Amino acid sequence: MADQSTDTTTPRAAITRRRLLGTAGATGLALGAAGGAAGYAAAPAEKSAPLTSLGADRVMFHGKHQPGITDALQARGHLVAFDLAAGAGRKEAAALLRRWSTTAERLMAGEPAAHDDTDVARDAGPSSLTITFGFGHSFFSHTGLENQRPDALDPLPDFSSDHLDKSRSEGDLWVQIGANDALVAFHALRAIQRDAGGAARLRWQMNGFNRSPGATAHPMTARNLMGQIDGTRNPKPSDADFDQRVFVPASGDPAWMANGSYAVVRRIRMLLDDWEKLSLKAQEEVIGRRKSDGAPLSGGTETTEMDLEKTDADGKLVVPINAHARITRPDQNGGAAMLRRPFSYHDGFDADGTPDAGLLFICWQADPLRGFVTVQRKLDRGDALSQYIRHEASGLFAVPGGAAKGEYVGQRLLEG
Amino acid sequence: MADQSTDTTTPRAAITRRRLLGTAGATGLALGAAGGAAGYAAAPAEKSAPLTSLGADRVMFHGKHQPGITDALQARGHLVAFDLAAGAGRKEAAALLRRWSTTAERLMAGEPAAHDDTDVARDAGPSSLTITFGFGHSFFSHTGLENQRPDALDPLPDFSSDHLDKSRSEGDLWVQIGANDALVAFHALRAIQRDAGGAARLRWQMNGFNRSPGATAHPMTARNLMGQIDGTRNPKPSDADFDQRVFVPASGDPAWMANGSYAVVRRIRMLLDDWEKLSLKAQEEVIGRRKSDGAPLSGGTETTEMDLEKTDADGKLVVPINAHARITRPDQNGGAAMLRRPFSYHDGFDADGTPDAGLLFICWQADPLRGFVTVQRKLDRGDALSQYIRHEASGLFAVPGGAAKGEYVGQRLLEG
Repeated sequence: MADQSTDTTTPRAAITRRRLLGTAGATGLALGAAGGAAGYAAAPAEKSAPLTSLGADRVMFHGKHQPGITDALQARGHLVAFDLAAGAGRKEAAALLRRWSTTAERLMAGEPAAHDDTDVARDAGPSSLTITFGFGHSFFSHTGLENQRPDALDPLPDFSSDHLDKSRSEGDLWVQIGANDALVAFHALRAIQRDAGGAARLRWQMNGFNRSPGATAHPMTARNLMGQIDGTRNPKPSDADFDQRVFVPASGDPAWMANGSYAVVRRIRMLLDDWEKLSLKAQEEVIGRRKSDGAPLSGGTETTEMDLEKTDADGKLVVPINAHARITRPDQNGGAAMLRRPFSYHDGFDADGTPDAGLLFICWQADPLRGFVTVQRKLDRGDALSQYIRHEASGLFAVPGGAAKGEYVGQRLLEG
Repeated sequence: MADQSTDTTTPRAAITRRRLLGTAGATGLALGAAGGAAGYAAAPAEKSAPLTSLGADRVMFHGKHQPGITDALQARGHLVAFDLAAGAGRKEAAALLRRWSTTAERLMAGEPAAHDDTDVARDAGPSSLTITFGFGHSFFSHTGLENQRPDALDPLPDFSSDHLDKSRSEGDLWVQIGANDALVAFHALRAIQRDAGGAARLRWQMNGFNRSPGATAHPMTARNLMGQIDGTRNPKPSDADFDQRVFVPASGDPAWMANGSYAVVRRIRMLLDDWEKLSLKAQEEVIGRRKSDGAPLSGGTETTEMDLEKTDADGKLVVPINAHARITRPDQNGGAAMLRRPFSYHDGFDADGTPDAGLLFICWQADPLRGFVTVQRKLDRGDALSQYIRHEASGLFAVPGGAAKGEYVGQRLLEG
């Protein structure tokens, strides 16, 4: 994992660009950050100005896995899907993935794009930028690569809670962008869009956010817009079976998906007006956890194992039978687990004052049938939370393994 | 200004809640931050967890001026306008402003709302939250307060570049929310909306963003989505005539606007596809400044005075006659000046892939006729930038002075 995550050897205190330049080459990170500084260093005003930690934090583009899967949640995110243009096929797709990989590598190092950089990210460091690429079901027919399409990309089943907008679902190509600075993220989004050129046209795009680094004392778990701690039961990279659950094995089937993962993306609107009318007690019974600290209603702290059998004085289950956290527990789903790495979203209000807000749910797994589909089928049959949410868009994407140096993402598929 | 701005005596390094609690009362800031921690401190998991600087930074609600005018730009912003409900008048408006002021005071201190807090900001510090309230032209007729309506609220003149959407313009009441954490900002937005209850209904709402603290070495000036440094010529609080330009005098006319300011709000879409097609040289001639560092094309650094007469070897003006920075210079506008404090916005893409992005332009002045209107009239007659932007919404609001302790914002109007 070390090649994927932000290098924690960087001092968190402010460091000057001069100092970074002076130590360039000492570590991969210093080299990268220095590269970034050098890329934009021509302006006299920037000379020896401090590049603070938030800006200097950098995720590596090259590695076993693509970035943006196991890295810390970022404050700002963009999801964008493209369809190949009429007439564009495998050759144009290969050239596009090559352009996109070059851009991702440069921007994640804090350097400007290779051509026509807009300067929107200028002065800022990479700010933990990650850019992640995936292929949708339709990509394979549009490129004559049907025989390379993984079975895992078979369309998701319908769920009774689905209210899906097809125009904001699926797509040939999917790009996930995350950064701790909104201008760095927007800059990357525009660079990715510009690279698409005549080869692909934008299909849908969504903006999201998470808590800013430093705003909270809880680095592990995040709160969502229902006010609920979210992510407590996420698998941890330290778990023995983490890789097995999240990533396709190196022996990959198909081979080009070695070390890749499958992303399920759902735009889940939260019916906040209804939710907020519930009492705290009612909300906690819907979830099965305390709202304040995420502890199970059966007691303890956030990380305490839930006691599913515990009853109150009246013999009633303390964690109700339809509580969301009970239903989503892996041991209630044949060991199913996925790594959830969401962004919240808020796109304003409907005409009647109802917020268009909720979760850009993104989950990562080695096999969607054993991950998302298993859990969602269970939720579909009796999750107390279901009346307070609405799935409005859906996507399933094959995210290949990380690119080696000199390689681009998806090269093993497109030149295989 | 000390009562308005984030207290800079706080150490920037991480400080623990316990330490904050231990020093409560030593300074206004420590008291406030401790109040915030105490407000949400019941959860055992939070005990003595570090509250870092971004979260702990706090702006004071009470003061000579309202917050959110001279305070540092925040990473996330919401603008929202309300109209009084049918049947609601002065009495209901007074009660609403009292509720809103209570909420603003509590949330800016990091405390939960007085009733039915959603917990979305729980765990986080105030994160430099500011909440600012203003009154639009229509407020005064809806409350029978026409005789208290300032002449300065007379509707702005039409400009040839206007493409205004009336449904996203003006409004009886305006609230500006800013914070360095997106969940803290959203939490405040929902609390303000909930407080409106049956007294006012949401008219329009916009989301914006700025660079995250720590992402860049340039604390003074920001870049906009055109990649341009923006705000170089902003008046500075250290200027001798700063207060005179930005704030209504304490002798106020009308009296209830003492120490207040007028906010002009414009949703300015940037035609980024056209802009980004220009060469760097062409972009710099549109603006009149270097893109890299904001220095005038006549030479020097960002803060160097622009030489308006300088010509090149061919006798051509180095700063073109229609350059944006030439036209907006105060000495070209009879000394007009306003404090610009904008957010960028990005609401996705139109169906053809054109970004719906630009600037939520907010400027503050003692008199809109001598500030925004003077400059905008000049721009309307020949600004090279005008073909790359489009004003899509507009608002003009009277923002009264800050509330004293025990008082609510606008009390001198509503109970005067």
